[in-house]
Amino acid sequence: MRLITDTDLEAIALGSAVYGTGGGGDPYIGKLLAQNAMRQHGPVQLVGLDELADGDLVVPVAMAGAPTVLLEKMAEVEPLIAALRALERLLGRPAKAVMSIEVGGLNSTIPFCVASALGLPLVDGDTMGRAFPEIQMTLCTLAGLTASPLAMADEKGNALVVQAVDNQHTERFVRSILMDMGGSTYLAIYPMSVAQARGAIVPGTITLAQQAGRTLFEARARHLDPVAELVRVTGGFDLFRGKVLDVQRSVDGRFSKGRAELRGVDEHSGDSLELLFQNEFLLARRGDAVLCSTPDLIVTVDLETGEPVTAEQMRYGLRVAVLGLPCVSAWRTAAAQALVGPRCFGYDFDYQPVEQAVMDREPTPADASGAA
Amino acid sequence: MRLITDTDLEAIALGSAVYGTGGGGDPYIGKLLAQNAMRQHGPVQLVGLDELADGDLVVPVAMAGAPTVLLEKMAEVEPLIAALRALERLLGRPAKAVMSIEVGGLNSTIPFCVASALGLPLVDGDTMGRAFPEIQMTLCTLAGLTASPLAMADEKGNALVVQAVDNQHTERFVRSILMDMGGSTYLAIYPMSVAQARGAIVPGTITLAQQAGRTLFEARARHLDPVAELVRVTGGFDLFRGKVLDVQRSVDGRFSKGRAELRGVDEHSGDSLELLFQNEFLLARRGDAVLCSTPDLIVTVDLETGEPVTAEQMRYGLRVAVLGLPCVSAWRTAAAQALVGPRCFGYDFDYQPVEQAVMDREPTPADASGAA
Repeated sequence: MRLITDTDLEAIALGSAVYGTGGGGDPYIGKLLAQNAMRQHGPVQLVGLDELADGDLVVPVAMAGAPTVLLEKMAEVEPLIAALRALERLLGRPAKAVMSIEVGGLNSTIPFCVASALGLPLVDGDTMGRAFPEIQMTLCTLAGLTASPLAMADEKGNALVVQAVDNQHTERFVRSILMDMGGSTYLAIYPMSVAQARGAIVPGTITLAQQAGRTLFEARARHLDPVAELVRVTGGFDLFRGKVLDVQRSVDGRFSKGRAELRGVDEHSGDSLELLFQNEFLLARRGDAVLCSTPDLIVTVDLETGEPVTAEQMRYGLRVAVLGLPCVSAWRTAAAQALVGPRCFGYDFDYQPVEQAVMDREPTPADASGAA
Repeated sequence: MRLITDTDLEAIALGSAVYGTGGGGDPYIGKLLAQNAMRQHGPVQLVGLDELADGDLVVPVAMAGAPTVLLEKMAEVEPLIAALRALERLLGRPAKAVMSIEVGGLNSTIPFCVASALGLPLVDGDTMGRAFPEIQMTLCTLAGLTASPLAMADEKGNALVVQAVDNQHTERFVRSILMDMGGSTYLAIYPMSVAQARGAIVPGTITLAQQAGRTLFEARARHLDPVAELVRVTGGFDLFRGKVLDVQRSVDGRFSKGRAELRGVDEHSGDSLELLFQNEFLLARRGDAVLCSTPDLIVTVDLETGEPVTAEQMRYGLRVAVLGLPCVSAWRTAAAQALVGPRCFGYDFDYQPVEQAVMDREPTPADASGAA
């Protein structure tokens, strides 16, 4: 166990936005909320699963909705607590710890609000080791855990409890209901015992995020290349450096979908790159050549500061580095591909690990540009 | 208390379709289901509120969805029981009686299935004294009772519990969720104590429906004009007799909306009539002249047999009588008009009681036709 203070949250929020792979909600709002809660209620105990009892109930708490909406509607803590309480009532027992459903700006930090306000420990880990746009897209689903029973609440006082036959149905119900709640919702979801959590979550991801955040702060302080430092600490690949030329979005309310077009700024990068996103970045490609795709992490950071740039923040003129980070190995099985692979998002190709794609490209680093 | 047998259901189903004012689901399916349940599990005790204790929990059970969908998807009893059980679990106490949410073909008879299967009495009454398309459109809403907490279930095994801040929110949530359930859902809704039910429901409507049904059977047996007999027993008005010329429908999945155009078959009727519906018939007009509108009941019956014709069943060539039945007086207050009046459905005029409209028209019975 270690205590997380409001100061620690600076690095956690920053690093979470890296692993949020362009989604996971706005890091700034989540950080402010969590810091505010911790100044009121005190620091949070970050614990490993082995510090809890096997039968203890762990409940991930999260916000869901298109990032575009989450930016407009200020997040609140009370509905998140209301959701947790509704789920506890249904289950007939209290949560012994909360957890982040995903690593991402908002959804990594907002559980700290609940942990601090209720005096509950927060499990160091999450259900994805990254962020994904749909509820069934967790390692818990692969481990046979169900997202429901889950509770939803909104800031008006509405609360719903969902018990669905599978996580795909859960996703459908939650997505519709959150539209009726005004585009966002607060969730207490994937309730699990500590015993169930073992092997169904990615442990240590809050610490990982904190390390990535610290690395960026240090790079700034020591005038190092933040992108190179981030590549080093995350074990990722520096895929592309370029300028955002165009961003197309189609927010249907349920998701923020779109594509960004980038033009390379160095000869290593080639002349262009296309990024496709559904809340999170899912595909980085040049023509038909895939540089990185789901479930590997595509991370865009500001070229000068290393600050993560979410899909929501992408806009003309930004100079960014596009990194590819290998996902956790549990995402690389055939079952995982059927849940979160490229074809799950309508892309007609099979997943190739980012390190493999990088290796294949090595002989001709700027193959598609003709500038080599 | 009186026992309702499967034979009694013939008249109840037929009469319910009269008061269902064109909606409330298909009477045939509801009857078959209820008769089947009663043959298996025995007859049902029909009780008045005064036969129950003040604190007893009464729970209306119903199906919701566009009638078009309800016709396609065969109704089942198990999900309705699942919904009731889910609500009981949430409330922490068992229902002592079930009730019909509305008078209408399916929703009057399907509660008999649950009553029979679970050995519960059925309250003689409903929350509208007719059928309406939206969940908040009940006298319970006017009496300050909430539709939620409510439970929803589907035939796949999904179950949801909704606790909304008001009945308008409930309608919105339920409508979205039922779309995700495939266009229909099973509800245990508007849980109330017997004390709350007093003054919030219309008592005696099952008996009323049974009387209307019996009247039609007798008229057939005795070769009387079924339409005239129905007018007599319901206290309604014979507004129009004509042939269906055209029916336009726009089923968006949530509701069956549309209009039917009729041509008069006698000089009393005038030359034409237009019927507008959203699941239920809501407006009967000739040009700008309103003959009958919500919340009064517009009932179409086959001219020869007196068999009610639902909006779903309207089709070219049918010869029907259009009756106007005064709604219960509780629907005629200003508050009621704000909940179910013409403007609630987008019609730009104020409600005029059907008997008033008929009286105003008396001098020129066929005023718009010029055929007088």
